[in-house]
Amino acid sequence: MARIVMKFGGTSMAGIERIRNVAARVKGEVDRGHEVAVVVSAMAGETDRLVNFCREASPLYDAKEYDVVVAAGEQITSGLLAIALQALGVPARSWLGWQLPIRTNDAYASARIGTIDAEIIGAAMAKGEVAVIPGFQGMSEDGRITTLGRGGSDTSAVAVAAAIKAERCDIYTDVDGVYTTDPRIVPKARKLGKVTYEEMLELASVGAKVLQTRSVGLAMKEKVRVRVLSSFDDSKDDDGHRGTLIVGDDEIEEDKMERQLITGIAADKNEAKVTLLSVPDRPGAVATIFTPLAEGNINVDMIVQNVASDGKSTDVTFTVPRAELTRALDVLETQQATIGHAGVKHDTKVAKISVVGVGMRSHAGVAAAMFKALADRGINIQAITTSEIKVSVIIDEDFVELAVRVLHTAYGLDAEDEAA
Amino acid sequence: MARIVMKFGGTSMAGIERIRNVAARVKGEVDRGHEVAVVVSAMAGETDRLVNFCREASPLYDAKEYDVVVAAGEQITSGLLAIALQALGVPARSWLGWQLPIRTNDAYASARIGTIDAEIIGAAMAKGEVAVIPGFQGMSEDGRITTLGRGGSDTSAVAVAAAIKAERCDIYTDVDGVYTTDPRIVPKARKLGKVTYEEMLELASVGAKVLQTRSVGLAMKEKVRVRVLSSFDDSKDDDGHRGTLIVGDDEIEEDKMERQLITGIAADKNEAKVTLLSVPDRPGAVATIFTPLAEGNINVDMIVQNVASDGKSTDVTFTVPRAELTRALDVLETQQATIGHAGVKHDTKVAKISVVGVGMRSHAGVAAAMFKALADRGINIQAITTSEIKVSVIIDEDFVELAVRVLHTAYGLDAEDEAA
Repeated sequence: MARIVMKFGGTSMAGIERIRNVAARVKGEVDRGHEVAVVVSAMAGETDRLVNFCREASPLYDAKEYDVVVAAGEQITSGLLAIALQALGVPARSWLGWQLPIRTNDAYASARIGTIDAEIIGAAMAKGEVAVIPGFQGMSEDGRITTLGRGGSDTSAVAVAAAIKAERCDIYTDVDGVYTTDPRIVPKARKLGKVTYEEMLELASVGAKVLQTRSVGLAMKEKVRVRVLSSFDDSKDDDGHRGTLIVGDDEIEEDKMERQLITGIAADKNEAKVTLLSVPDRPGAVATIFTPLAEGNINVDMIVQNVASDGKSTDVTFTVPRAELTRALDVLETQQATIGHAGVKHDTKVAKISVVGVGMRSHAGVAAAMFKALADRGINIQAITTSEIKVSVIIDEDFVELAVRVLHTAYGLDAEDEAA
Repeated sequence: MARIVMKFGGTSMAGIERIRNVAARVKGEVDRGHEVAVVVSAMAGETDRLVNFCREASPLYDAKEYDVVVAAGEQITSGLLAIALQALGVPARSWLGWQLPIRTNDAYASARIGTIDAEIIGAAMAKGEVAVIPGFQGMSEDGRITTLGRGGSDTSAVAVAAAIKAERCDIYTDVDGVYTTDPRIVPKARKLGKVTYEEMLELASVGAKVLQTRSVGLAMKEKVRVRVLSSFDDSKDDDGHRGTLIVGDDEIEEDKMERQLITGIAADKNEAKVTLLSVPDRPGAVATIFTPLAEGNINVDMIVQNVASDGKSTDVTFTVPRAELTRALDVLETQQATIGHAGVKHDTKVAKISVVGVGMRSHAGVAAAMFKALADRGINIQAITTSEIKVSVIIDEDFVELAVRVLHTAYGLDAEDEAA
């Protein structure tokens, strides 16, 4: 008997038929003698619908009220899954964010989980009841509903798993694991059996879209073993396992020899590029740009600074999620006098391509190989950043698929015989 | 300056354009210097969608989880209206049922409001903030979400108005007031300027459908002045008023002389007639029929008993909502031995016509006039019941429109020159 958390994404919860399927999976784990807590997303499309309502109501909507609106999606699926479980004879009840409570800070619309009291969930489990918990939502100190930002349900699941000291957090989604790259782009992409938290962080943050970045960071911090697997497909790989396990470096160490230099390649079309022209080149200049953006809760990703030829000013380029571009431009306009830049350019027709792998740490030449492979196909690189286990470039959105395929082959990731 | 509650129904909240229209109406009252609390319904169609999800998930759904699901509809519109108000520069925030809290009993899915703490709403109003409150929902003593039953938002609005001692509770809907009868049947129907709580109760319960019956009962008990008016049409009547005021007898008294004997005529096609043949005529016989029906939650309306010519048995006729007819017949069949009736007849092709008016109390002959008017047109009366301010008859469904028109003219209710 083990304690496990099962988390189901929006595709798995899209409609009553699928929710019934989820209930059957949960019953399966209960029947195996496990104590189960379930974390659910809203039905696929529902959060978008609610977000669009807010935007339509006012482009500069109050994040507190936005949270009231969008948290409803997971509230609905929680109640429905509890009903579906009861219909299968499995005792279950929903516990909303404010009922547990899942305490967060007051960064409405992108709140961070503080503490989850494990007592209620533990008591429910002890009497054989499945606790159904809406992902994505919590409660601020003021007693108002908060949400964790898009994709936040994964983070909720990992946080619950940490709180109740679960043996494993199973994230059920519409893919059967983490791949070397998007199989829709590269049919020869391979499913990975295990990846490290760090690799997953880089893959997720650059758009692998399997797991929310924050959830992986939290899993790493709390040492929660996470498994990503399919809600729809029960097939096992050659080792008899399902999905992809995301674990610490220590668990990877043993099969290190067999691992590729590069673990995966990710593409992200959800970015927008912003360039501030002729920012005066003085100490603290960059802080005047990024402090107000951070205060506006705008997620800046890549930052590239090029000193201009006159040596007195500099162009600063960075990327933000496309959804936050308008707000970012607003912030920059109000700060124009402080920053002192001559102008702003922005471009939404860009994409970020990243190659990721812990093997990179001990190997030189990974970045150079990337630049060469792209140059050989005439793909222009607009910006570059690197980290210990990742190299990312910004390119024209039109070349995304070509770039990913070229790199997948260049790093020897193609499966030998068949499409995955 | 006055305190007022404004309530907007599902049609008024159906989509962001309409929610913006609602926000503008609220702003109008704020600009006139009023302190305003707003109670909102879910978008039209949304509650049906959520109810259907629950039914699909399990026909025997848990009412506690049903409430978690369906309460989401009003949560969404509350947040959206707060956003729309802020966009117009009106300070506003949503207060969910569990946040105020609106305490109810634990009759999940059909809960009754106990107490509403006026302190929070009062404090919000005092600092010039509009409190936006989702209708239909509350919180049980166990800290779980409850809902009040369909149409419950009207009741929420009246309860909030009573709690904050509002001068008036304005119910905005898709009609511009209460009419002498359905204007689709009688083009000469007139909008009523004022009706009493009791008249409204009779009109609502027999199918006027403008306000939920429970809300009128609560308004009468708490002496809340209610006004029904249109969200879409700003036209005023000859006296410069909008809508219909629902008030106590005392407020009617002053213009009593000008009032018609009959206030309105209602038709209800949603009834089915059941007749039990030859029920043994002994003490307690009627209880053996209606106790099990009540225990089966079947809403019996009219009851008519005719002693048969032999003096030993009696035919008992009553009406139930058509949707409950099958269940009612089931109950009667299982109780046949106890009741001892010789047979059951039922008829769904019937309708109930009621004439309503407080003036009836002091005037004889209202019922007689009704019977004569119907007889003159050859309309057969199948059953009759009367109350202090109402006379109802059951007739063949085919004659509903004719009966209503005939009675509207007979009681002098036709507008003189034009269609209303």
